[in-house]
Amino acid sequence: MSKYWSNIAKGVEPYVPGEQPKDKKYIKLNTNESPYPPSPKVLEAIKRAANEDLRLYPDPNCDELRQTIAQYYDLKKEQVFVGNGSDEVLAFSYMAFFNPGSTIFFPDISYSFYPVYSELFKVNYKLVPLDEEFDIPLDKFFDKNGGIIISNPNAPTAKALSVESIEIILSQNEDSVVIVDEAYIDFGEESAVKLINTYPNLLVIQTLSKSRSLAGLRVGFALGSRELIEGLDRIKNSVNSYTLDRLALAGAVEAIKDEAYFQETRTRVINTRERVTAALKEMSFNVTDSKANFVFISHPKVQAECLFRQLREKGILVRYFNKPRIDNFLRVSIGSDEEMDCFLEAIREIISR
Amino acid sequence: MSKYWSNIAKGVEPYVPGEQPKDKKYIKLNTNESPYPPSPKVLEAIKRAANEDLRLYPDPNCDELRQTIAQYYDLKKEQVFVGNGSDEVLAFSYMAFFNPGSTIFFPDISYSFYPVYSELFKVNYKLVPLDEEFDIPLDKFFDKNGGIIISNPNAPTAKALSVESIEIILSQNEDSVVIVDEAYIDFGEESAVKLINTYPNLLVIQTLSKSRSLAGLRVGFALGSRELIEGLDRIKNSVNSYTLDRLALAGAVEAIKDEAYFQETRTRVINTRERVTAALKEMSFNVTDSKANFVFISHPKVQAECLFRQLREKGILVRYFNKPRIDNFLRVSIGSDEEMDCFLEAIREIISR
Repeated sequence: MSKYWSNIAKGVEPYVPGEQPKDKKYIKLNTNESPYPPSPKVLEAIKRAANEDLRLYPDPNCDELRQTIAQYYDLKKEQVFVGNGSDEVLAFSYMAFFNPGSTIFFPDISYSFYPVYSELFKVNYKLVPLDEEFDIPLDKFFDKNGGIIISNPNAPTAKALSVESIEIILSQNEDSVVIVDEAYIDFGEESAVKLINTYPNLLVIQTLSKSRSLAGLRVGFALGSRELIEGLDRIKNSVNSYTLDRLALAGAVEAIKDEAYFQETRTRVINTRERVTAALKEMSFNVTDSKANFVFISHPKVQAECLFRQLREKGILVRYFNKPRIDNFLRVSIGSDEEMDCFLEAIREIISR
Repeated sequence: MSKYWSNIAKGVEPYVPGEQPKDKKYIKLNTNESPYPPSPKVLEAIKRAANEDLRLYPDPNCDELRQTIAQYYDLKKEQVFVGNGSDEVLAFSYMAFFNPGSTIFFPDISYSFYPVYSELFKVNYKLVPLDEEFDIPLDKFFDKNGGIIISNPNAPTAKALSVESIEIILSQNEDSVVIVDEAYIDFGEESAVKLINTYPNLLVIQTLSKSRSLAGLRVGFALGSRELIEGLDRIKNSVNSYTLDRLALAGAVEAIKDEAYFQETRTRVINTRERVTAALKEMSFNVTDSKANFVFISHPKVQAECLFRQLREKGILVRYFNKPRIDNFLRVSIGSDEEMDCFLEAIREIISR
C-alpha cells in the first residue's frame, strides 16, 4: 500500500479477467469469446475509417451508432447509450443510479465484477442466494432495495430467466433501477428490451463482445427509458467526453447491420453447445441448461480444479472459480467444432484415467 | 431530474466539449486537434490489426504499448499507465489519489474538466488565482492540500511553467500527489518526466490526441513512480479490464515509434503558431506567450464574443469561454498554414470594420 493511494484505491479488490497467456498457443475456452471472426463488413468499415480523419475527435454523442442500435431494437436514439464495453456501461450505471450507502441486490453466484463495482463506488450489496438448481428466486428481489442487477443469462451458471420472470421483478420494484445484464442474451433467451417502453426503471445492457465477435473492439450499450439514458449521459460526460474511438464506432455500426452474419454465427455456437452438452452428459457430467455461449459443468468423480489443471497441461484453457458453491464447476466457452472435439477428447481421457 | 438518478447524477454539471457541428464544413480551430493526419505507419498498423483477432479480448495489461512508451521516455514498463484518452486517465487519477472530502488545488483558469471531476468524485477544490499575466503563483501551492493538478502548458492560457518551477511545487508537496497534465507539452516546453525517478509523488499525464494527431483514437497515458502506476491499475481493473481496443493499441505503438513524423508535424505547428502570433500582434491583439498548439488572444477594441460570432458566420470555429477573467479572450487552435491564413484574413476584416 502506498501512502499516495486514496482510501478507495486501498480498499478495492480489483476484478481478475480470464488469463490471456502468451507463452504458447492454447485452445482458449476461458473468456467466452466467439470462435468466429467478426463480419467481413466490420473489418472493411474499420479499414475505411483508418484514414486521416483520425486526427479529429470522434462524435461525442455517437449519433450514428445509437441510431443504428435504436432502429435494430425499434427504439428511439434517446433510449440508447453506448460505451467502451459493457463493463464501462455497468460502471457508469452504478454511478448514475445507485446511491453510495444504499443496498442493491444481486445473486450470490453471478458476474464477479458486481461486488468490485460495489466496493469501488461504496454501494452496499445483499447477495441473494440462488437455489440448489442455480435458479434465481424471484420473490427474494421484492424487498426494499437501492437497485437490482440480474445477469440474464446468468454467468457463470449459464441459466436464464424468462422475460415474464424479469417482468415480475420489474413490477415489484417501481422505485429502483433494475439492470438486466444481457451479455449472453443472443444465445438462446428472449431479451427484456420489449419491456422498456412499459418500465421506466428497466436498463438492459448488452455487448458486441460475444455474439458479434468483437471482444477486441470494446463496444457495449444500454437500452432504457430516456430518463435512464440521460442519467448515464450525465455521468459519461463528467468522466470522458469520447469513450468510443472512430474505428470502434465505424465497426460497431456494421456489426449491428450485418444481420445475416450475426444469425449464422450465433446459430453455429448454439448448435455446437447442444452437441457438446449431449456429449458431456454421456460422460456423466452435470451440465446446467445453458442459454449462453458457454457451459457450466461438474463431474461426479473428478474434481473441477483437477480437470482445470489437466486441461491446461493439454493446452486447453477453461475457467475455474475457487469460490463457495461453485468450486466444483468449470465454465467452458463454446469454441469452434474442431476446438470442442479436442476438448471432449481431452476430457474423456482425463476422466477415464 | 429523474427519481431514478443517484445523488451523484443529480449533482454533476457535465463537461461540454468543443462543438463538432455537422451542418456544414467549417475551418475547425476549436478543439486543439492537429491539422496534420496521423503518421502513415499508424494507419497501416490499424489496417493490419483489423483482422479476425478482433474476436479476442485485447491484452488487458497493454504490455507492448506500455513497453514502447517506457522505452521512449527511458522508464520502466511499470512506470507507465495507458488509458482511453487522457480524460479517462485523469478520472482514474482522481479516484486513485484524491480522497473524497479532501481539498485539492488547481489554478482558477485551467482545463474546465477539473471542477467536473471534483464534483463527480466529491473531492473539494481550492482555485488558486493566476496572476494578472495568467502566470501560476508557485507559493500558493505550498499550503497543506489533498493533491495538486497543474496543466502545463496551461489551457486555455497557453502559458507554461519551466521544469524548475514544477520541481519547486513537487519538493514542497512530498505528502500529496502532484499531477502535471502535459497534453500540450510537445509544442514548446520541457516535460517533467525527467523528475519522475526523484519524486514518487509526481504523475505526468500525456495524450496522443494533439501532437500525435490521434484525437480520434482515444489514447492517453500517465508516467510516474511504480506505486502511483499501481494505484491507477487498481482503479482501472475495478472499472473496466480492457479500456483500449486492439486497433488503438496497434496504432498507438506506431505513433510513438515514428519519431521523424512526430518531429516534423509538431515543428510545423510551432512554426505556424509563431507566424500567426506575429500577425495577430501586428493587428494589436494581446497574445499570451504560447507553448501549446493554440493561441489565447484578446483585442483592445473588439469584444471576444463578438469576434467568436462573426468568425462562426464566416465558417471558422474557435473556442469562447463565457467565464470570469477570460470572457474577453478566444482560444484559437493552430491549423494548417492555409487555414490560419483564412483565419487571419477573416479577423483582419472583422476588426477593421
